Amino acid sequence: MDETRQEPAVIFDLDGTLVDSVYQHVMAWRRPLAEIELPFSVWQIHRRIGMSGDLLVDAVSREVGKPLSGAESQRARDLHDKYFADSMDTVSPLPGALPLIKQLRQADAKWTIATSGRAADAEPMLDMLGLGLDDVPLLTSADVERAKPHPQLLLAALERLGANPENTFMIGDSIWDMIAAARCGALGIGLLSGGYGPEELERAGALRVYDDAADMLYHLDEIAPRTRD
Amino acid sequence: MDETRQEPAVIFDLDGTLVDSVYQHVMAWRRPLAEIELPFSVWQIHRRIGMSGDLLVDAVSREVGKPLSGAESQRARDLHDKYFADSMDTVSPLPGALPLIKQLRQADAKWTIATSGRAADAEPMLDMLGLGLDDVPLLTSADVERAKPHPQLLLAALERLGANPENTFMIGDSIWDMIAAARCGALGIGLLSGGYGPEELERAGALRVYDDAADMLYHLDEIAPRTRD
Repeated sequence: MDETRQEPAVIFDLDGTLVDSVYQHVMAWRRPLAEIELPFSVWQIHRRIGMSGDLLVDAVSREVGKPLSGAESQRARDLHDKYFADSMDTVSPLPGALPLIKQLRQADAKWTIATSGRAADAEPMLDMLGLGLDDVPLLTSADVERAKPHPQLLLAALERLGANPENTFMIGDSIWDMIAAARCGALGIGLLSGGYGPEELERAGALRVYDDAADMLYHLDEIAPRTRD
Repeated sequence: MDETRQEPAVIFDLDGTLVDSVYQHVMAWRRPLAEIELPFSVWQIHRRIGMSGDLLVDAVSREVGKPLSGAESQRARDLHDKYFADSMDTVSPLPGALPLIKQLRQADAKWTIATSGRAADAEPMLDMLGLGLDDVPLLTSADVERAKPHPQLLLAALERLGANPENTFMIGDSIWDMIAAARCGALGIGLLSGGYGPEELERAGALRVYDDAADMLYHLDEIAPRTRD
């Protein structure tokens, strides 16, 4: 056994992983996309949550075959941000998120949150998790040029943590988290709490899939053995 | 070849199969369940859509381990019905639903809609599909004692159509549709338009899985060969 081997580092996604906000994002995108005549079905929007807003609008516009002006794309994003902010009072921490964070902080572990979302949305959610901006090195879409599924956000998180990808778990609920993890050589762990099916996450590279943070915490010895008390 | 073999009959689910309403149902359940202190995560509600309202409330109450009074259960259902009705203006037909129905009507096919939902919700949705109550033998939760995943609703639909289960396709978006189909010996066809993953539907017995009604119509020869024009 290599006693000098580093403790694993952990990068969390935020929406659908630590807070129960994916379906609110889905509904916040439905209306603006319909308004700019990109009538995407709701399940198709759901499958693109976890991408940054720019990328989601670009992806939908390309799939529908309707190029958008910069103003239309901006308007859709602004409306999403407004509708999502309006639904913030329906968002709450997911089961297990609070005890998991507590345990990581007590263990003085290397961990961070890397979200394709905006800092303005992340801050009230950190607050729900009992975290201030000083408690966690938060990375958002504003910190990089390209958010998930591009690996840039995770590479920035790894650098911030001083961690090696091969010893780092990316915990997320979307296939974009798993793909970004694979692209930077980190280990993807999928959670069902964003509404993907387990095989979708496995096929995107998840090593293990759990229901939610509570279920992962219960099975933590499968991925990051705890020392005996 | 058996030239006397019947043309196949088709039973459609409604929400998530013909109309884009699953996510609205999900959000309409979130609030009342939280109010009666059954704080189920939103993805867990999503995975129970397609059951009747009674069954969903019972299932959630059992899983959370909190028995409900009849009044609490009724209140949750009433609130869901109210919130869902409030969101009806955001519901629209799914891609392919209108042409598929047109084709079935032109071919004078045996077909029907069997929903675990309520007639009061189904009627405006039929209207969106260009159908009146006289155009389709609609079956709702009110017609049977137990809705999907129990086979009762499908058995009633088969009887209404005078069809044999082994020659009948159940088209639905949820695993409850697929399980009900298997339990009465009908052939399940899964659609992703309700937000399940493809493997979830296959594992619940779907013979084939398509994106939505449009994708199924495009591949119709795989399940119900059309005669050449």
